[in-house]
Amino acid sequence: MKIAIDAMGGDFAPQEIIKGAVAGAREYGAGLIFVGPRERIQSELSNCDTQGLNIEFVHTDEYLVEGEAPAQVLRVKRYASINLAVRQVKEGAAEAVISMGPTGGVMAASLMQLGTLEGIFRPVVGGAFCGFAPRTITLDMGGNLDARPDQIVDFAVVGTIYARKVLGIENPAVGLLNVGCEEGKGNAAAKEAYPLLKKSGLNFIGNLEGTDVLSGKANVIVCDGFTGNVMVKFCESLGRAASRWLEAELQNDVSAERAGEIARKLLDLTVLADNTGGGPIWAVNGLVFKGHGRSRAKEMAVTVGSAKRYFELDIVNALREELRAVRRRLSDSAA
Amino acid sequence: MKIAIDAMGGDFAPQEIIKGAVAGAREYGAGLIFVGPRERIQSELSNCDTQGLNIEFVHTDEYLVEGEAPAQVLRVKRYASINLAVRQVKEGAAEAVISMGPTGGVMAASLMQLGTLEGIFRPVVGGAFCGFAPRTITLDMGGNLDARPDQIVDFAVVGTIYARKVLGIENPAVGLLNVGCEEGKGNAAAKEAYPLLKKSGLNFIGNLEGTDVLSGKANVIVCDGFTGNVMVKFCESLGRAASRWLEAELQNDVSAERAGEIARKLLDLTVLADNTGGGPIWAVNGLVFKGHGRSRAKEMAVTVGSAKRYFELDIVNALREELRAVRRRLSDSAA
Repeated sequence: MKIAIDAMGGDFAPQEIIKGAVAGAREYGAGLIFVGPRERIQSELSNCDTQGLNIEFVHTDEYLVEGEAPAQVLRVKRYASINLAVRQVKEGAAEAVISMGPTGGVMAASLMQLGTLEGIFRPVVGGAFCGFAPRTITLDMGGNLDARPDQIVDFAVVGTIYARKVLGIENPAVGLLNVGCEEGKGNAAAKEAYPLLKKSGLNFIGNLEGTDVLSGKANVIVCDGFTGNVMVKFCESLGRAASRWLEAELQNDVSAERAGEIARKLLDLTVLADNTGGGPIWAVNGLVFKGHGRSRAKEMAVTVGSAKRYFELDIVNALREELRAVRRRLSDSAA
Repeated sequence: MKIAIDAMGGDFAPQEIIKGAVAGAREYGAGLIFVGPRERIQSELSNCDTQGLNIEFVHTDEYLVEGEAPAQVLRVKRYASINLAVRQVKEGAAEAVISMGPTGGVMAASLMQLGTLEGIFRPVVGGAFCGFAPRTITLDMGGNLDARPDQIVDFAVVGTIYARKVLGIENPAVGLLNVGCEEGKGNAAAKEAYPLLKKSGLNFIGNLEGTDVLSGKANVIVCDGFTGNVMVKFCESLGRAASRWLEAELQNDVSAERAGEIARKLLDLTVLADNTGGGPIWAVNGLVFKGHGRSRAKEMAVTVGSAKRYFELDIVNALREELRAVRRRLSDSAA
């Protein structure tokens, strides 16, 4: 398996990206295609042990910068590293692509070159975001801010395949994030999504309030991307605040080292982006992994492992099939 | 000042409600009008020290039960305790009303009898919800699930008055909860609310991501009621999970008592509904306070104190004036 690496994506690119990709390739067994300025990449590689690794290059001097409007920029910077990296997957040269660059750019490049799976409007972003509920994944986290009810059902399908394939939960429980438990509660999108989810054939367990997000009742929590994005980022905000408070609170109870250790543990449980690698951009025609801009070599290496695993699980095809099955059930029930 | 008490509202009504109201009336100096079954109330009062207190009664045998559709029920149960309690304010017999009954019922009774302030569509719910940011209030928390952009501006006005009058912050910073910092980010409502907030004359500091909710950057955070409700309830979910984890993590570091104490402190900081009283239902023509259904005497007493304070701050009139001023600015800038 070969993975295309956007060598210029991320706050610590290219150094940490290259270091991490090489480490990941060695640990998990994968070939790499580095996309970016060839000389810079090779100079970084000269500091790494690449012996025996299968490494290729696609040269380009262009790359995206945080803050640029991605769709527009990609039309001008046609040879941007993320664009050429995604193209490796499209052309069959690589089986997955990884970028720590700007989300909008990765999304736009994936959309323009790979396209979404049948009937999916925009890529879906999600995953487990809090260490207190590692077997609960939330979607969407920001790809679909004004999600329509039928898109929320798509999120549920993506989440079901994710939970089944990646977490090994045979029949994942799907909850609709909402302001109350009873059917009929919610904003317009949630109210309309409820009956669709009921008829989807998925294991829909009904509405789930914010208080139950970490309770483990649901393996898959679906919501519009605006709400999901705010909740996930708020988790980090609360984690940081609680961690700071805890370190001070413990100062007369334990040593400064131990207080710092406990505070860091709490941070690790609540700020997952810091210690797990990137996650997939769901529902595009290919494996695209996007990690946090501040990812370092460690996160990059972990993401190489994830890409390898998802490839072996044949997850894109599994998702394609489940989407078709759910659509068939919904149209049968409407007929 | 007199406060009408919905004696039958709440999981522990009437006993805890009455006990707490009497304690609050004594502590903060307020008269009480108990609304509910007179004999039951008097029998509860016989266990309280009511000497010297100004206590009146409005008898009714009807009251709301959790789960009933409030608007419909209030048309049938015209003499429901919450209805008659709110009516005391409408008729000028009381200056405020407190209920720990179902939110929908309190909202509906307030809307039907007091109505909203000029130009406000539905009552607004909000306040500080996390002890790590006691000077940051969030609105809306569930009254307006599909909030329009102009309603989000109303939330900002309510929050500004709240922060200025209650928290004593002269020029409160208002942030728009969003998925990114730059103008132009967001779902449809947030995108459209941004330019309105800019022209509102309020101290608008721009978009605020979930990561910054507890940073103290904003005194007032505005968002649609769906997002707000989910975030506030998620805070509780994370607080409970972190608290449980912490108690276990500390077991070899400190005594079980001390571990329990620290865990409880964290819970107090994240599950505010448990230790603060009820808050006002904003933007109705009168002072209506609603607390959590599981409120006990302590929370009830605190709420009596809040009602007294808000009355003395003349907060409803201040809000009415600021709403007019902001509307004038927006229509001037549109002209």
